[in-house]
Amino acid sequence: MGQTLTEKILSDHLVEGDLTPGEEIGIEIDQVLMQDTTGTMVWLQFEALDLDEAQTELAAQYCDHQTYQFDFKNTDDHRFLRSAAGTYGAHFSRPGNGICHNVHKENFAAPGKTLLGSDSHTPTPGGLGQLAIGAGGLDIAVAMGGGAYYVEMPEVVNVRLEGELPEWSSAKDVILEMLRRETVKGGVGKVFEYTGPGAESLTVPERTTITNMGTELGATSSLFETDEKTKDYLERQGRGDEYVELTADDDAEYADEIVIDLSELEPLIACPSMPDNVVPVREVAGEKVEQVLVGSCTNGGYEDVLPAAKMVKDQEVAKHLEMIVAPGSKQAGEMLAREGWTAEMMAAGVNVSEATCGPCIGIGHVPASDSVSLRTFNRNFEGRSGIEDDNVYLCSPQVAAAAALKGEIVDPRDLADELGLDAPGVELPDKYDGSKTDLIYAEDAIDDELIKGPNIGEVPLQDPLGSDISGETLLKMEDNITTDHIIPATSDILKFRSNIERLSDFTLSRVDETFAQRAKDAGTGVLVAGENYGQGSSREHAAMCPMYLGIEAVLAQSFARIHKANLFNFGIVPLAIDEETYEKIEQGDDVEIVDDVAEAVESGQEEFTIRVNDDWEATANLHASERERRILTAGGKLPLTKQQAEGGAAPADD
Amino acid sequence: MGQTLTEKILSDHLVEGDLTPGEEIGIEIDQVLMQDTTGTMVWLQFEALDLDEAQTELAAQYCDHQTYQFDFKNTDDHRFLRSAAGTYGAHFSRPGNGICHNVHKENFAAPGKTLLGSDSHTPTPGGLGQLAIGAGGLDIAVAMGGGAYYVEMPEVVNVRLEGELPEWSSAKDVILEMLRRETVKGGVGKVFEYTGPGAESLTVPERTTITNMGTELGATSSLFETDEKTKDYLERQGRGDEYVELTADDDAEYADEIVIDLSELEPLIACPSMPDNVVPVREVAGEKVEQVLVGSCTNGGYEDVLPAAKMVKDQEVAKHLEMIVAPGSKQAGEMLAREGWTAEMMAAGVNVSEATCGPCIGIGHVPASDSVSLRTFNRNFEGRSGIEDDNVYLCSPQVAAAAALKGEIVDPRDLADELGLDAPGVELPDKYDGSKTDLIYAEDAIDDELIKGPNIGEVPLQDPLGSDISGETLLKMEDNITTDHIIPATSDILKFRSNIERLSDFTLSRVDETFAQRAKDAGTGVLVAGENYGQGSSREHAAMCPMYLGIEAVLAQSFARIHKANLFNFGIVPLAIDEETYEKIEQGDDVEIVDDVAEAVESGQEEFTIRVNDDWEATANLHASERERRILTAGGKLPLTKQQAEGGAAPADD
Repeated sequence: MGQTLTEKILSDHLVEGDLTPGEEIGIEIDQVLMQDTTGTMVWLQFEALDLDEAQTELAAQYCDHQTYQFDFKNTDDHRFLRSAAGTYGAHFSRPGNGICHNVHKENFAAPGKTLLGSDSHTPTPGGLGQLAIGAGGLDIAVAMGGGAYYVEMPEVVNVRLEGELPEWSSAKDVILEMLRRETVKGGVGKVFEYTGPGAESLTVPERTTITNMGTELGATSSLFETDEKTKDYLERQGRGDEYVELTADDDAEYADEIVIDLSELEPLIACPSMPDNVVPVREVAGEKVEQVLVGSCTNGGYEDVLPAAKMVKDQEVAKHLEMIVAPGSKQAGEMLAREGWTAEMMAAGVNVSEATCGPCIGIGHVPASDSVSLRTFNRNFEGRSGIEDDNVYLCSPQVAAAAALKGEIVDPRDLADELGLDAPGVELPDKYDGSKTDLIYAEDAIDDELIKGPNIGEVPLQDPLGSDISGETLLKMEDNITTDHIIPATSDILKFRSNIERLSDFTLSRVDETFAQRAKDAGTGVLVAGENYGQGSSREHAAMCPMYLGIEAVLAQSFARIHKANLFNFGIVPLAIDEETYEKIEQGDDVEIVDDVAEAVESGQEEFTIRVNDDWEATANLHASERERRILTAGGKLPLTKQQAEGGAAPADD
Repeated sequence: MGQTLTEKILSDHLVEGDLTPGEEIGIEIDQVLMQDTTGTMVWLQFEALDLDEAQTELAAQYCDHQTYQFDFKNTDDHRFLRSAAGTYGAHFSRPGNGICHNVHKENFAAPGKTLLGSDSHTPTPGGLGQLAIGAGGLDIAVAMGGGAYYVEMPEVVNVRLEGELPEWSSAKDVILEMLRRETVKGGVGKVFEYTGPGAESLTVPERTTITNMGTELGATSSLFETDEKTKDYLERQGRGDEYVELTADDDAEYADEIVIDLSELEPLIACPSMPDNVVPVREVAGEKVEQVLVGSCTNGGYEDVLPAAKMVKDQEVAKHLEMIVAPGSKQAGEMLAREGWTAEMMAAGVNVSEATCGPCIGIGHVPASDSVSLRTFNRNFEGRSGIEDDNVYLCSPQVAAAAALKGEIVDPRDLADELGLDAPGVELPDKYDGSKTDLIYAEDAIDDELIKGPNIGEVPLQDPLGSDISGETLLKMEDNITTDHIIPATSDILKFRSNIERLSDFTLSRVDETFAQRAKDAGTGVLVAGENYGQGSSREHAAMCPMYLGIEAVLAQSFARIHKANLFNFGIVPLAIDEETYEKIEQGDDVEIVDDVAEAVESGQEEFTIRVNDDWEATANLHASERERRILTAGGKLPLTKQQAEGGAAPADD
């Protein structure tokens, strides 16, 4: 039986398990990437592992989120990241050099390789045939230390593209169509493989727009086969020698097939406040727009900004609106400047900003209250732009530029008639000739020790799991507590991401402001929650901070998948309780696990007995794989990996 | 007897008083400018005055400080400012179009006219022969309403420039030399008039670097005569018809004369943390630099960035540092982009940012901790860059670019030898051909009503002064309380500048966190302070907020000049007490002014009797001009102006 491309790449990298969808597999990682809001913790963990040098073929550290450097903590983080990259053998990309996904695509993305990145849009280079997955920071640190990455084997779905895109439609409309059909949950546990003549018709930058935003489908990754277009792109980037031909077997078996006829796609737009809230642009035409933003890892490339620049040249953006262009990379920005497009955009009334992803997560250019913002970005979750109750629409650069000129949402086909605009098409430069000055290659590193500003903390290390767990129920929570409840992501708090001691002061503050102080006073304790505890983002800080505060177990009716993995990773025992037990336990109750915890976890025991207030007992269940039990027993993944390294027991895939 | 140029312009605009140094004069204002952190309050006051339209020849509203818009309040402020400019007949400059002083110089600054601006660097166009003065927001609002501006008649000092600048020395070194000699207090109560062959040798952009930073001398303003260079500059800006020849009389009498031989100036640098801490660059050469910033109202013009761009072209900035260029205006940025300089700077490793003054006041690009930042800006007060204990040096673009290439402070003459650099000189473009798209002229306004986001508050209006003032001593303070103590300027608080109700919660919080709440609970009360109460910035919020909280009188041993004016402007009675009284009054004491306050103030009474705790009495003095007494009686300048307008009693200079 033939293999999909995903299966081929996974087979090449498999170190544990087999390729049965839903089963855990361990794979070898060739490349890792980190950005600035997650990277500091990766390196602090790498340091805590006492490792000397990145073991992956390539490691790259980018500075892209906090590039406006509103606080010295941001600038200190960047300096620390440069020093860490230099010390441990990673490439370093200076703030201002661009978004990790863009710069990685331009410089390092390689067909057939695996890439693990501490950012959810890591799958971007899938458009070049690289299997790329986003993960938590500790997973990156361990992979960089030479350890395998464990993930549930995804189902592989074939997205067959037919036809060719009409004028004024773009790659963004392909992924918006996918979101319209499949929704933001449609990709969970899946890899989407794009094939067919339509896929062949797309350039690499168009393909990476699609693979980038596959994340919004919830997909593990997205992938294109490689072909002449891939080779051509790599050649224009001066990396033709890195081309590898990669295709699925003709008789590959896919779990499912989706067919999209590109020729039928019209300009689409995602309405507030979910990326799958997609309609044809014409359906919302006439809506007044106050802000237009072009850029991001989805549509910030040279080939993305150029159409917008062509459209606004010799025109003027509407007076009541602000149009901001933040190129995705210095390469894009420099080429656009050299060719005169930057001056043309400025002349049209565009505010050309730094290469940054800032505004996508509400760092800079926050929309005005009660206003519509049109963005070429990938997410429009409510409040993500930096203001609650925002109205953010997602669209292609063509639709964005049209709105900027008209002052309201308009299908560019209709504006073209009105203004006599030509469809800009997709144009690749003969040669991507931006400079590499802001890329400090590992071999040119200037640092050989870590530079830690006062906000760069230590990684807390947990002791191995003991026999006894007992303590006060410090907080009893409802259903659906999110990681935003556990560790809020607002910028006032975000700047403490490198400092668990300080960050932990904000733990669960949105539920109970007194919690952190009470936990500190108690020294130890447990949490109780209802269903779906820990849903939301993958941020590991939501487990690290409770661990730092002494939380030893969480008793919940159910756990969100990624957060549960994070609890294991940081040595907190996640115990499932039934509704009756949940109802009966009160905040303040003393909870004791009657069993010898360490022994029970290690031996594979599932049922645990908890005694409450020395008065009544109930059963709690530990659902954990053998690997997860090993992690828990060691006190977390960090101590386990450390232990293995020290004991000479190399990580599984060495 | 002949007149100085300052006297000539003042004579032409005099509506009250005579030109005796130290005496109060009232002058007519031709032009006003506002920026975004002070402008919102200007317009709210203009609105509160029930005025229909700006009465000055020209009013211009710029958005330049909060252009990164990292809170919706910033973006809301910008939208409000656009709507206010449109509604009341002012020109509006969009965020991204540049710094008020730069854009004003390019578009509106006119020889012989008076300009009042709500920013301390308003004197910039003195380099074009415009008499320009910085003032508090209410003064701008009143001037825009047609009222006179009152200021102490300054002494006029002649700064005679001889010789010509050597290669690698620049206009920045002229003003740094002035600061070295005269200190940051050397200009208080003075206007500096630059004359002589050296002055004639300087281009207008060089002259405005000097007049801009005259503010750091404490000067009321700085001025150059106009000549062929002025005419030439205006012609290149397409405004040759606005040229007026203006010179001091040959027999003008100056209060003092300072002589600087330009040919003897070497590259200078202001060391941390005061602009007058000036030494030759060679004295601090070798100091490692981590950040270089080129831009600001002092050195952000096309002619300022160009030398830096020429120096870094085909070079690379040191790997361990970040060089950021934020052009002073879109005109400069667009021309630099069009001519290829932006691409060259990017290629050299420069992060080219938006046209903004943000980083100068710690909004963006805050230095890393314990690091040296070299800036072409005008101020390096400790902490101003956004981090306490910073190490900010001030220098010319040439010195900044040299440090960026070398990675440490270096005299560019020494680096030129090392790298074979040519001195870039000063080059004006044949024509300043940046677009005007971001300038929305009053006649093209798109708004006819104010757009107020939820953070845009109301201007509190005080009732006329009553007969009785009595209340608790809500706070007893030490000597030298600054406006930073009264209303802190950190960005968390700065964003509430348009919202006195919200901002007042932070009143005196650095002295006593409970103060604002206690004042609200009390409803009314008085403040007691030692010497020099209210020193520091001109921010009127330091009087508005206490007024809002019900403070009716401040009893202090002495007052800082500008803050005392602000207390009058907002209807708070500033009473001078002696040391014995200060020592005797305790926080919490009940203070009652025994006299009929309204009657006493109006009648010119100087001595007031205060009774404390119904137990003992002391004398307090009101030192106030007749005009100030009128203001106080009316409850402040705003109610007075309103009253005059309603009563048909036009402002003095109508």
